[in-house]
Amino acid sequence: MTTITAAEVVDLRFPTSVMLDGSDAMNPDPDYSAAYLRLHTDAELTGHGFVFTIGRGNDIQATAVASVGERLVGRQVDGLCEHVAGLAHELLWDSQLRWLGPDKGVIHMAIGAVINAVWDLRVRREGRPLWESLLALSPSEIVELVDWTYLSDVLDPGQARELLEERRPNRTDRLAAVESDGLAAYTTGPGWLGYTDDKLADLCRQAVNDGFGLVKLKVGHDLGDDHRRLAIARDVLGSEVEIAVDANQRWGVDQAIEWVQALSGHDLRWVEEPTHPDDVLGHATIAEAIAPIPVATGEHLANAVLAKQLLQVRGTGILQVDATRVGGLHEQLAMLMLAAQAGVDVIPHAGGIGLCEAVQHIAFFNAIALAAEPGRLMLEHVDHLHEHMAAPVDVRDGAYHLPRLPGSGTALVDGVDASFGYPTGTEWSL
Amino acid sequence: MTTITAAEVVDLRFPTSVMLDGSDAMNPDPDYSAAYLRLHTDAELTGHGFVFTIGRGNDIQATAVASVGERLVGRQVDGLCEHVAGLAHELLWDSQLRWLGPDKGVIHMAIGAVINAVWDLRVRREGRPLWESLLALSPSEIVELVDWTYLSDVLDPGQARELLEERRPNRTDRLAAVESDGLAAYTTGPGWLGYTDDKLADLCRQAVNDGFGLVKLKVGHDLGDDHRRLAIARDVLGSEVEIAVDANQRWGVDQAIEWVQALSGHDLRWVEEPTHPDDVLGHATIAEAIAPIPVATGEHLANAVLAKQLLQVRGTGILQVDATRVGGLHEQLAMLMLAAQAGVDVIPHAGGIGLCEAVQHIAFFNAIALAAEPGRLMLEHVDHLHEHMAAPVDVRDGAYHLPRLPGSGTALVDGVDASFGYPTGTEWSL
Repeated sequence: MTTITAAEVVDLRFPTSVMLDGSDAMNPDPDYSAAYLRLHTDAELTGHGFVFTIGRGNDIQATAVASVGERLVGRQVDGLCEHVAGLAHELLWDSQLRWLGPDKGVIHMAIGAVINAVWDLRVRREGRPLWESLLALSPSEIVELVDWTYLSDVLDPGQARELLEERRPNRTDRLAAVESDGLAAYTTGPGWLGYTDDKLADLCRQAVNDGFGLVKLKVGHDLGDDHRRLAIARDVLGSEVEIAVDANQRWGVDQAIEWVQALSGHDLRWVEEPTHPDDVLGHATIAEAIAPIPVATGEHLANAVLAKQLLQVRGTGILQVDATRVGGLHEQLAMLMLAAQAGVDVIPHAGGIGLCEAVQHIAFFNAIALAAEPGRLMLEHVDHLHEHMAAPVDVRDGAYHLPRLPGSGTALVDGVDASFGYPTGTEWSL
Repeated sequence: MTTITAAEVVDLRFPTSVMLDGSDAMNPDPDYSAAYLRLHTDAELTGHGFVFTIGRGNDIQATAVASVGERLVGRQVDGLCEHVAGLAHELLWDSQLRWLGPDKGVIHMAIGAVINAVWDLRVRREGRPLWESLLALSPSEIVELVDWTYLSDVLDPGQARELLEERRPNRTDRLAAVESDGLAAYTTGPGWLGYTDDKLADLCRQAVNDGFGLVKLKVGHDLGDDHRRLAIARDVLGSEVEIAVDANQRWGVDQAIEWVQALSGHDLRWVEEPTHPDDVLGHATIAEAIAPIPVATGEHLANAVLAKQLLQVRGTGILQVDATRVGGLHEQLAMLMLAAQAGVDVIPHAGGIGLCEAVQHIAFFNAIALAAEPGRLMLEHVDHLHEHMAAPVDVRDGAYHLPRLPGSGTALVDGVDASFGYPTGTEWSL
């Protein structure tokens, strides 16, 4: 019997603010960070999970991950892996911890990291990548992973099972398609707000060369800048490559509508995070006003209850599920199923540190087992910090290709702690 | 010039679970707790703020409060007190901390505690209770405390100012009324789910003797128990004393409707927290289905953006603003104004440790300066743990009476840390 012997948590921070990588209208100087958890066992087996943050406060998040992770020490790996849904229920319905959310913010993300670390451990034990393990589960097994308490007025377990069953005959073809062509990637790399016009133009040129079909630009700080930068990007990209814009919640509802209408001549593929992520009704108002340009959002959706409502009111045309924002894999699966029922495409949020590696498993599972139109799907890509991941993404010719190594993509290479541990790592103490 | 010299944070926990005080359908064994902040200065002056939690996880919350509070050390008290809105903006729009919410959960409550501690310091310096200091501000000054970014599509600063101006001529009469009669209190004391039927009946008898006009019972664990306990309460209380019920988020939307309809013969004054606090649309569905019984909710509303929407869809008939859930006094004021505009009564959540003492200031300010019908207002009361508060509530004849001591009600008596500090206090280490 293998036992969890330690829940090691480390505060990792990468000094991305130095180059203004990741800068947008709300986040001028992020230091991409991870409250990172390693579950150790008395065998060779380990499990890895994390919460992505952007710097200050990563210590608070790490404290929460450690506090929740500590509960697993001394438990049997067999039991945990065979009944991860039971662990999720135990943690998410712990009444005292729940008071700190409920189902949102620091405590919710911490629980998510712990659940995901157990999944990482589970699929490593199986010797498979996460997406493949999920495909090996029956529709009923997938449905049973989800907590339907607050969702079943819109989608109940029976309907969710039907959704999965309906797509089941297409799986072989869909798997063959992604094995051959991958899943389309789009790039946010050129569009950070802190980059000069020249750097924007250069990176747009590179995006074309790299085969990306869509480039995303940050907007919302200054309308004149937005016009100028969009014109530069369009000039380089031509009409073949699409452009999406991302305001990172910068606007109130009325301002969002005015600003997007002012930019609407730039042929925008979508408008991302126009306002506060909790404003379900505000998103609906914006979506109606700026149609046919779709709203896209999701990276800051705290839970599936908010996703349910956003889809109910057609407040988003694209759901951007995040790798570490919600209460773990089970809640991500719930969001995929809610989106499938609503006929809304899932184009996950990625970037940061480790988000691409982690969320691609969900994206591939969705494309193969759930989505209505897998050909319309994409996945965000930002080409930095991948060198720290033990199983970095395989992005070629503008597409993600199936990860083949065992695990959920969350493991780091050796030595990251010594360099990027905060504040004592060599990158910070120099 | 007075300077902040320390932000002292202590993890306080009271072993309320031993007596099942506070037990409900979701929280079987709470230990009422506070992540408690004391701002010390180089003068006699101190400022007190806290986040209420129910036990496990209070250490995580305390870590967050300490991390945010630390930023104030070394700053001038004058500047902080004269421009608390500036501090709130600095903390709530810190892009890196905001990633941990945004505007929700552990980080948001921590920022709220820090803002409230500065308010406590400010009004102590003025030598006034908080409600009185708020009344001394002009409508414009009140409106300027609030961040309208995500609210102004429904209520803009001009409209908010008008609301306050409209009620201004009534202030003298309203103040005289609460000075004479106080603000009606209702009691949750008899209705905890863990109490025996005999204890329920005894406490209902006592509630009648104490002059309370409404008793709240916890429901949602077992329908048969709910029927029986409601019948016992009604038998003791007669038809003069109202009964409200509280499910503490136990139900999904459909289950809430069924359960409440089954209980509707018990003449219920309101149904509290029928489902997940983030489910704005679910609340609207429930409210419509169970009318004319109103829904009441608010203690777990993470922010004013959610309150705005809940009021937009008429998802609640009573808004139960909490003392420590949101980002401090400014966000509570925003919620009061949103409720006033919607014509929805504010009947704050209280109980716990210190919540009655803190939230009464908001309740009195609302009754005097904002509410449409102050005669309809009430404030929750639970008669325990008040002995630990330096300025305990004055509840007599079923009413709260105006607090007169300087401060915002958040200060503790000396010696609490030594007894209830966790885990080293004498109450925990015995």
